[in-house]
This record gives sequence, C-alpha cells and structure tokens, in this order.
Amino acid sequence: MLKDLALKNRSYRRFDNSVAIPMSTLEELVDLARICPSAANKQPLRFILSTSPQDNDAIFGCLKWAAYLKDWGGPAPTERPAAYIVMLNTATDWDFAKFDLGIMGQTMLLGAVEKGLGGCMVGAMDREKLRAHFALAPELEISLVLALGKPAEDVRIVDLPADGSIKYYRDEAGTHFVPKRSPGELILLKTGK
Amino acid sequence: MLKDLALKNRSYRRFDNSVAIPMSTLEELVDLARICPSAANKQPLRFILSTSPQDNDAIFGCLKWAAYLKDWGGPAPTERPAAYIVMLNTATDWDFAKFDLGIMGQTMLLGAVEKGLGGCMVGAMDREKLRAHFALAPELEISLVLALGKPAEDVRIVDLPADGSIKYYRDEAGTHFVPKRSPGELILLKTGK
Repeated sequence: MLKDLALKNRSYRRFDNSVAIPMSTLEELVDLARICPSAANKQPLRFILSTSPQDNDAIFGCLKWAAYLKDWGGPAPTERPAAYIVMLNTATDWDFAKFDLGIMGQTMLLGAVEKGLGGCMVGAMDREKLRAHFALAPELEISLVLALGKPAEDVRIVDLPADGSIKYYRDEAGTHFVPKRSPGELILLKTGK
Repeated sequence: MLKDLALKNRSYRRFDNSVAIPMSTLEELVDLARICPSAANKQPLRFILSTSPQDNDAIFGCLKWAAYLKDWGGPAPTERPAAYIVMLNTATDWDFAKFDLGIMGQTMLLGAVEKGLGGCMVGAMDREKLRAHFALAPELEISLVLALGKPAEDVRIVDLPADGSIKYYRDEAGTHFVPKRSPGELILLKTGK
C-alpha cells in the first residue's frame, strides 16, 4: 500500500553509515524520477549520483541540517548518509521546475523507502561551495540534495501542540517528532458526496 | 512495486465520466498528502474537494488542457473528470511551497492510481474565475488543480524523437505519446560504485 510507504517515508537525518548504497540503487531511483510527470513535460532536472566517500564528504560539508534543532549540528560521522542525489535545474527561469523538484524528489524518496532505505530532501546548503566542488557549468542550478541511507532514528508524526507550532523537535531519547496539521485544517471545503 | 504505480501514473486527461469518485476517496488522498514531507514542515497547502456535478462543471470551465495539442479543446462531456482537488497555497511569499505542491500532487496521483483511478495536475487555468466561483479569501492562492477520474485513454512513454522535442502528441487512433529523456541525458555524473 502506498499509505504504508508514505508513512515510512519520514525525513530521516541519521543513518547507519555502515550500510552502503550501490550506484545501481541510485540509478533505479533516477529511473523512477524519469517517468514522473513534469510540468509541460519539459524535464529540466539533471542529477549527480554519489556513493563515493570522498564526494559524499564534500557534499556533506555543504549541507545545513534541521533548521529547527538549534543544538544539533547534523549527523555524527557514523550516522551520515551513504549516498546523495544532487538535483540540478537547467530551467532557472521556469518557475514550474520547482513542481518537478517536489514530484521527483518525493518519488525517489518513496522508492528508497521501498528498498529499506530512507532520506531527506535538503534545501539549505552552501551552493557556491558545492558548485565549485563539482565544477558545475553556470547554467546548472543546484536545487535540492537528496541525502540517502539506512535510517537509524525514530521519526514520528504527532498532532500540532496547543501553540500551533509546526517545528519538529526531539525528546531526550532522541526520538524525532513532526507535528502535522489535521485533515480538518487542510480541507477547506467539500462539495459533493 | 512503486515502479508499477509510477508507470501507470500517466497524466490522464480523458476519463470514463460514468465512474463516480466518492468524497471518501478524495479524503484518503488528502490524508496521503498530509503525511508527506513539507519544506521546513510549514504545511502551507489547503484543499477544496469536489465531486458535485455543479462544482465540477464550474472548475472544468476554468481549466486549460494540454497546451501542446493545439487542435484539442479538452475532454468531451463524457470524458470529463469525476472529481477535483483544488490545491491552494497560503504561503505565496514562500518559494518552497512549490516543492510541497509537487510532492503532494504526485503522492495523491500515485494514490489515485493505486485505487484504479488517475488524473492530471493542471496548472493552466483562469484563476480569477475559479477564485470568484468559490469566493476565496485573498490570502489563498490557487496553485494547481488535480483532475481525477477513471482513465479512458492510452498514454505511452516513448523516447525523444530525432529533433529532441519533448512535446507530447497523439496519433490518429488517439493514443497519447509522451517523450521522456533517457537516463543518460538525466544523469550528469556518477561518482562511486
């Protein structure tokens, strides 16, 4: 059931770094992205796939993790992602490319979950540093980075607290809680049966 | 397998209008969207669910279909969507909301496919007319409309033609062809094993 996959597909930021991800797995994920809907079918996204320790380190060094967790600097070395998919945009003046990023990012994450993996779409990073590392052509915009690995954390959906905050948080045991709005808040109007 | 769902999840624009979609199905799709990743977990999207003939007609009258098919004015009355999910954005100054639109739109479409349905994310429409129909508050931006129904067309992925055009097209039998870029075109670099 897709619902099971969607429930397991939490944004994971801590992984069991001893579990490697083969390049063939990343290629299968891009193959999922390839057959996704694309706004006006333009397909402006491109991908860099990394499983190499050196490039993984370089990518990791550019990422900013979990803005709401002020006391957490990101995953420890043994908890770091085993692979990355850097999502590049060749259509920077095409606003609809951002839909493609969401469509394809989510589909690849669902595909990773189906394989017993998981990950996180990271949007906060030092783009210039990452661009320099890969010597990217100017027409390639770095949009999102998918960080992937074998999840090693407990992430739970909870209701919003009384103050209505949507900020995720952790308890002392390290369990990560993500407040999600209720269906009643999301659905403004139903018309029909 | 997610791949099977993703393959069946073509952008359908012609439906068997005799097959109704109950409101409970739309609610299940929003429940999938609810548990999706959301940029910074802000969850700015809201939804209008329509299965009523009157509102369906009103929504249909605002949509623009298949820009590349110049000779096709959209689905005939018996081919029209049985239901719609209007996706509204409450964070119009938050560029990352567009990622959420892609993430949630795609996840709801995959959910529809799992139920034997299908649909299309429609981004071209008369937004002012649709806004007026539902008397929407100014802070609600109409972003995308998911058109949903029981698909009644054959949609196939093909390679890009020699001229590299990504425009979808139909043959005389009405089969709809969607050129998709090759994995080799999408993957710029692989690093690691």
